[in-house]
Amino acid sequence: MERSAPAPLRAPAPGIGMVGYAFMGAAHSQGWRTAGRVFDLPARPVLAAVCGRDRDAVRAMADRHGWAATETDWRDLIARDDVQVVDICTPGDSHAEIAIAALAAGKHVLCEKPLANTVEEARAMVEAARQAAGRGQVAMVGFNYRRVPALTYARTLVAEGRLGVLRHIRAAYRQDWLVDPAAPMTWRLRRDRAGSGALGDLGAHLVDLAQYLAGEELTGVSALTETFVRRRPDPDTGARSAEVTVDDAALFTGRLASGALASFEATRMAAGRKNSLRIELNGEKGSLAFDLERLNELAFHDHTEPAHTAGFRRILVTEPGHPYLKAWWPPGHALGYEHTFVHQARDLLEAIATGVPVSPSFAEGLQVQRVLAAVAESAEKNAAYTPVSP
Amino acid sequence: MERSAPAPLRAPAPGIGMVGYAFMGAAHSQGWRTAGRVFDLPARPVLAAVCGRDRDAVRAMADRHGWAATETDWRDLIARDDVQVVDICTPGDSHAEIAIAALAAGKHVLCEKPLANTVEEARAMVEAARQAAGRGQVAMVGFNYRRVPALTYARTLVAEGRLGVLRHIRAAYRQDWLVDPAAPMTWRLRRDRAGSGALGDLGAHLVDLAQYLAGEELTGVSALTETFVRRRPDPDTGARSAEVTVDDAALFTGRLASGALASFEATRMAAGRKNSLRIELNGEKGSLAFDLERLNELAFHDHTEPAHTAGFRRILVTEPGHPYLKAWWPPGHALGYEHTFVHQARDLLEAIATGVPVSPSFAEGLQVQRVLAAVAESAEKNAAYTPVSP
Amino acid sequence: MERSAPAPLRAPAPGIGMVGYAFMGAAHSQGWRTAGRVFDLPARPVLAAVCGRDRDAVRAMADRHGWAATETDWRDLIARDDVQVVDICTPGDSHAEIAIAALAAGKHVLCEKPLANTVEEARAMVEAARQAAGRGQVAMVGFNYRRVPALTYARTLVAEGRLGVLRHIRAAYRQDWLVDPAAPMTWRLRRDRAGSGALGDLGAHLVDLAQYLAGEELTGVSALTETFVRRRPDPDTGARSAEVTVDDAALFTGRLASGALASFEATRMAAGRKNSLRIELNGEKGSLAFDLERLNELAFHDHTEPAHTAGFRRILVTEPGHPYLKAWWPPGHALGYEHTFVHQARDLLEAIATGVPVSPSFAEGLQVQRVLAAVAESAEKNAAYTPVSP
Amino acid sequence: MERSAPAPLRAPAPGIGMVGYAFMGAAHSQGWRTAGRVFDLPARPVLAAVCGRDRDAVRAMADRHGWAATETDWRDLIARDDVQVVDICTPGDSHAEIAIAALAAGKHVLCEKPLANTVEEARAMVEAARQAAGRGQVAMVGFNYRRVPALTYARTLVAEGRLGVLRHIRAAYRQDWLVDPAAPMTWRLRRDRAGSGALGDLGAHLVDLAQYLAGEELTGVSALTETFVRRRPDPDTGARSAEVTVDDAALFTGRLASGALASFEATRMAAGRKNSLRIELNGEKGSLAFDLERLNELAFHDHTEPAHTAGFRRILVTEPGHPYLKAWWPPGHALGYEHTFVHQARDLLEAIATGVPVSPSFAEGLQVQRVLAAVAESAEKNAAYTPVSP
Repeated sequence: MERSAPAPLRAPAPGIGMVGYAFMGAAHSQGWRTAGRVFDLPARPVLAAVCGRDRDAVRAMADRHGWAATETDWRDLIARDDVQVVDICTPGDSHAEIAIAALAAGKHVLCEKPLANTVEEARAMVEAARQAAGRGQVAMVGFNYRRVPALTYARTLVAEGRLGVLRHIRAAYRQDWLVDPAAPMTWRLRRDRAGSGALGDLGAHLVDLAQYLAGEELTGVSALTETFVRRRPDPDTGARSAEVTVDDAALFTGRLASGALASFEATRMAAGRKNSLRIELNGEKGSLAFDLERLNELAFHDHTEPAHTAGFRRILVTEPGHPYLKAWWPPGHALGYEHTFVHQARDLLEAIATGVPVSPSFAEGLQVQRVLAAVAESAEKNAAYTPVSP
Repeated sequence: MERSAPAPLRAPAPGIGMVGYAFMGAAHSQGWRTAGRVFDLPARPVLAAVCGRDRDAVRAMADRHGWAATETDWRDLIARDDVQVVDICTPGDSHAEIAIAALAAGKHVLCEKPLANTVEEARAMVEAARQAAGRGQVAMVGFNYRRVPALTYARTLVAEGRLGVLRHIRAAYRQDWLVDPAAPMTWRLRRDRAGSGALGDLGAHLVDLAQYLAGEELTGVSALTETFVRRRPDPDTGARSAEVTVDDAALFTGRLASGALASFEATRMAAGRKNSLRIELNGEKGSLAFDLERLNELAFHDHTEPAHTAGFRRILVTEPGHPYLKAWWPPGHALGYEHTFVHQARDLLEAIATGVPVSPSFAEGLQVQRVLAAVAESAEKNAAYTPVSP
Repeated sequence: MERSAPAPLRAPAPGIGMVGYAFMGAAHSQGWRTAGRVFDLPARPVLAAVCGRDRDAVRAMADRHGWAATETDWRDLIARDDVQVVDICTPGDSHAEIAIAALAAGKHVLCEKPLANTVEEARAMVEAARQAAGRGQVAMVGFNYRRVPALTYARTLVAEGRLGVLRHIRAAYRQDWLVDPAAPMTWRLRRDRAGSGALGDLGAHLVDLAQYLAGEELTGVSALTETFVRRRPDPDTGARSAEVTVDDAALFTGRLASGALASFEATRMAAGRKNSLRIELNGEKGSLAFDLERLNELAFHDHTEPAHTAGFRRILVTEPGHPYLKAWWPPGHALGYEHTFVHQARDLLEAIATGVPVSPSFAEGLQVQRVLAAVAESAEKNAAYTPVSP
Repeated sequence: MERSAPAPLRAPAPGIGMVGYAFMGAAHSQGWRTAGRVFDLPARPVLAAVCGRDRDAVRAMADRHGWAATETDWRDLIARDDVQVVDICTPGDSHAEIAIAALAAGKHVLCEKPLANTVEEARAMVEAARQAAGRGQVAMVGFNYRRVPALTYARTLVAEGRLGVLRHIRAAYRQDWLVDPAAPMTWRLRRDRAGSGALGDLGAHLVDLAQYLAGEELTGVSALTETFVRRRPDPDTGARSAEVTVDDAALFTGRLASGALASFEATRMAAGRKNSLRIELNGEKGSLAFDLERLNELAFHDHTEPAHTAGFRRILVTEPGHPYLKAWWPPGHALGYEHTFVHQARDLLEAIATGVPVSPSFAEGLQVQRVLAAVAESAEKNAAYTPVSP
């Protein structure tokens, strides 16, 4: 299993500046740190600075994860000369302001999903990205699951026509950390911070994946949402309970441009489902199915086979010919969740160096936002079918 | 693995008269023939007569399946003295007429699902059943999947409170026999015969199971339906194509009386899914999941367990303590699809002998019909949330 | 899903006489009763008489399962004019005597597995069958799992060369009914009745399936056996404990004629494994895997496919093109354990009518017996590799 | 998902010197680089130097993976002052010499598995480790699969008595990279370099895991081995074929000290099995099953549960209460293959800092070697049961 020598670096090392340092910050750090150790990059990134409001906490995080410097104001981070890429890992309510300022300052931007809390914010971000693109800057949204190799490969199979005309997409993203009514309040349960609940956090992934895999957009949706537990203990204020202002669960159906039907479910109330993202596509020539809890596997049914030997085959997406895999381990050696961030870092750095358009772009992030807005509107309008505004 | 001697028969042998002799007729025959060989019945049924319009075909079927006599007019079947139970296996457009006549003639009735093609017909059938009940007659709908032991046992676990307050039901019934646009026209694709398409054929099972397992009713729905292939070859008229007047697929969401959210999908266009009925329930204390393609298994997650030893357990529903299983084989020896008809026959005969109320009753069949009607109405009204009329 | 009219019967109805009426008796009854209702048989069998030593018990069983008459001495059963097929469902120690007498009396014979308790008995039975074959009589061993459609189809794929040169067979049959040291003594735990324990009961199936699927014989074996619980409560004699004189578990490895390696495990001490028979074959061109707890499925890996789309596919063996399936239900509708007995009955009756050689023959049963004897010999000789005597 | 600040470092940073830079070198590099970013270590390791005979190749590797310096002679690596831990990732024939020299030079040692190519070498290594232990040095074998969290947790469950008295272990490690007869010769197929084939490469993992999980040793074995393809193309010498001098596959059975039976299979000839390590334990109170292709899952059957709710539960071993998991991602977020090397690095560094005995020790590595030697001896002696020499 000899590895060939890495290609010589083709570009100056870009400095990364990251805003936010919690769960996503740790995952992104792993991505930035590892990408250049595994892939032939044009240039190996430098973990220049990380930013957070709590000075001690951000310093501890920087030390833990290998960031060279810290900031407590994102404006200072953006202003640093050693930062060429701004990586936004904050809650959704600050995405627009930070991203627009970073783009204005000439930085490349990676922004966590969902792109923003509203369509208006997202639209302004797209405009900022459009202008920045003219200056050679890259702006990308962190829909990291596109970079699970099994899902990247699923897109390849769809693009090659292995499914034929699409008939169905069904997608569900289910967690269970809110099943217990005593689970405490967090910023993720406040509309002003998070924009929405399961919808924006989990549903955004589903919508992006559905459109990415299908290669087409949702044109309309019908939705039901629910907040099952409306007050939760507030860890900040002690015993008094705080109001949950987002959805615990969102169900929606819709149509794709081709006429295919789509079904979605996002919930944090499915006992026993820890991080269960399942997506299936059915076409005239074949079907694909994926489960994030078994992320190295892709199920593929080839409907053009004779019926007596046909069936969903379990492809272990760990072959050298599979996306990203040549750089990793031999066949059958599993990758995990964090590898999506390594792949994301690699693809962003490649796009910066080559000028190849990046995906998911801010425009794609806006399209997801439009779908989420249509979902919210439909849920308010008694589930009435609501077009996704163009 | 000794078997005890059967209990002595407690009642005169009821004669069965079956109308219809295709797929369902064969399955029901197997049920009637086998029930008394496996279970201690009050009386072993007699396969008295089968009815179909094609004299030669029905005779051949009677000979094959062991029916003593044949009829070509269902009115003659009902009139027979040796028939005490009328088993209706015809397309939905004739259910109401036959069932009402049979009940009026003093017969017990088993009617295939869906109960009828319209709510009006179903309502009339319920009224007929109500009057007949006063005379000691039994009327049952053939939602046979309730009698898959794993699903019967799932109901037991829900009724025992093992799931706690219910939050989610998701149910999908997917087949693929219409994926090929060249698949020919059948009565199942004509609205005047079948009432609807995937909705009434597959969706009716989902709605019944959801309400049965949850122990509560759907109060409203929002729906999208689609006919992907609108014209198909007509085997009766040769080359000219016939219009498909029913849905190929139906997606709907809804709410249960408790406020739980429900999601449904019925389709005949899911390549690779042959007879895939999956249903999952999530509650505050646990979850259940079932897949008809692995019908001897029930997945149960007990959310009251410590997190580090919790997980969906795969219960092989083949233990003597499981529903219906004491009469069958030792643990681990699989049952199949047709056993549901054996269990249905057994339970109907038991109800006739004991007077214990039968389930699913015609009233339960009507409730399913109301949901299907609300689904159809919602689909016509742009997916607007539509209450299930009481 | 119209069914065509059955073909006209081609032969006089054979009378079946069954010896033994416990678990296997019930299963065989179901087979005899159902075969003619599902398949186009040359003649529909008549359940003529069943034999057991306990007069009341056998009468109750006959009534339950539809046998026309009863006997308490198997010699009387054999002597009946209305019996043309003798079906032997007794413990192994009586197989040889009954089978040889039945063949001498001009009857066809179906004998439960294992064929006998010793190679000597089996050899005598083969000789009796050989002579009877000259008189047009059929003798078959009840290795019913060959007639699980997925396994019959697995043999087809091997025979078609889809696996290429065989390298590995691994087979395990695991149950757990002896895990509890308080589980009581039965005839199955006495060497004088059962011949051996897990080896003859479960291992015999594995050996037969391995040789059947591979299409070649085992040439030698190395074995370890163990009796973990050496004394068990004796239900016949009350509190005193009885000695277990058979193995609880048997592990053996071996070589096939082609040089392929084989691995076997038979045990009744695998907690949580109820009736888990798994078998896998690996060849140069492909692999097959099967699990009896999911008996409608066959996993097939085609190694000639490109690596990036290859993987074990889950074939639902329920298509009309699959063995036995045309006579049953539409695709995706599961069969169960007892269907193997229906298929066995059908194939035996077909062989009787047509003179086509039946399989597994007594000679094949003897070959299994030789392997079991070599296993027992190896276990006694410190696991030394022991040739299977020809 | 806030992360607490890391604990302050408690010790001087140890310098790592690694010998070998192919597949294992890359995996170990990832481990050393990541351990201090995820876990609270006593001190974060420094990637001081990597050693390989090809100067250019090792420099490229050092640059890729972040090693500060390079050496081309392992003696020079050991002599470096900035190296405190020597990590041996070479083929087995050099393990003993390097490890003994490194220990003599006062270094801690991590040695890839199998510990050595012969029992004699392993014994000398254990003696060297014993003497070094007196000087506070640590010596560990790289059986990394012990540090898959699901397997570490499996050991916890066994140690807590959840399985009760053990009856069975069965373990199989199957790959398919030698199925193709045209697959080329490598050092792994030469006895003088690799010691053995599938046995030492794959079987060593199985033996170590079996003894680790059971908490007891194998006392004897019986084995069959085979080389199916005896000559392969030699990439070094062009067209002429080279002789394969190791086994392609090894099957062995054995007994543990408690009397439990064990079954093992190691093969590189199982088409479609890429890196399939499965292990199952059955005890009187429960069972465990694991599959490396789904390494975040552990199946646990609790046999003390009522039979009707019992079944193998699929535990997602991603909870904060599971081994190693508190340092990683939220529940349901998968880890992969390389995380075992992160855990291994962490545990070794912890052992160095605290003096807590490390496991697997060289003595444990020797015990595995003894089993492998007994397997080889049994295979040569016609599978005769061969005691594992103490």
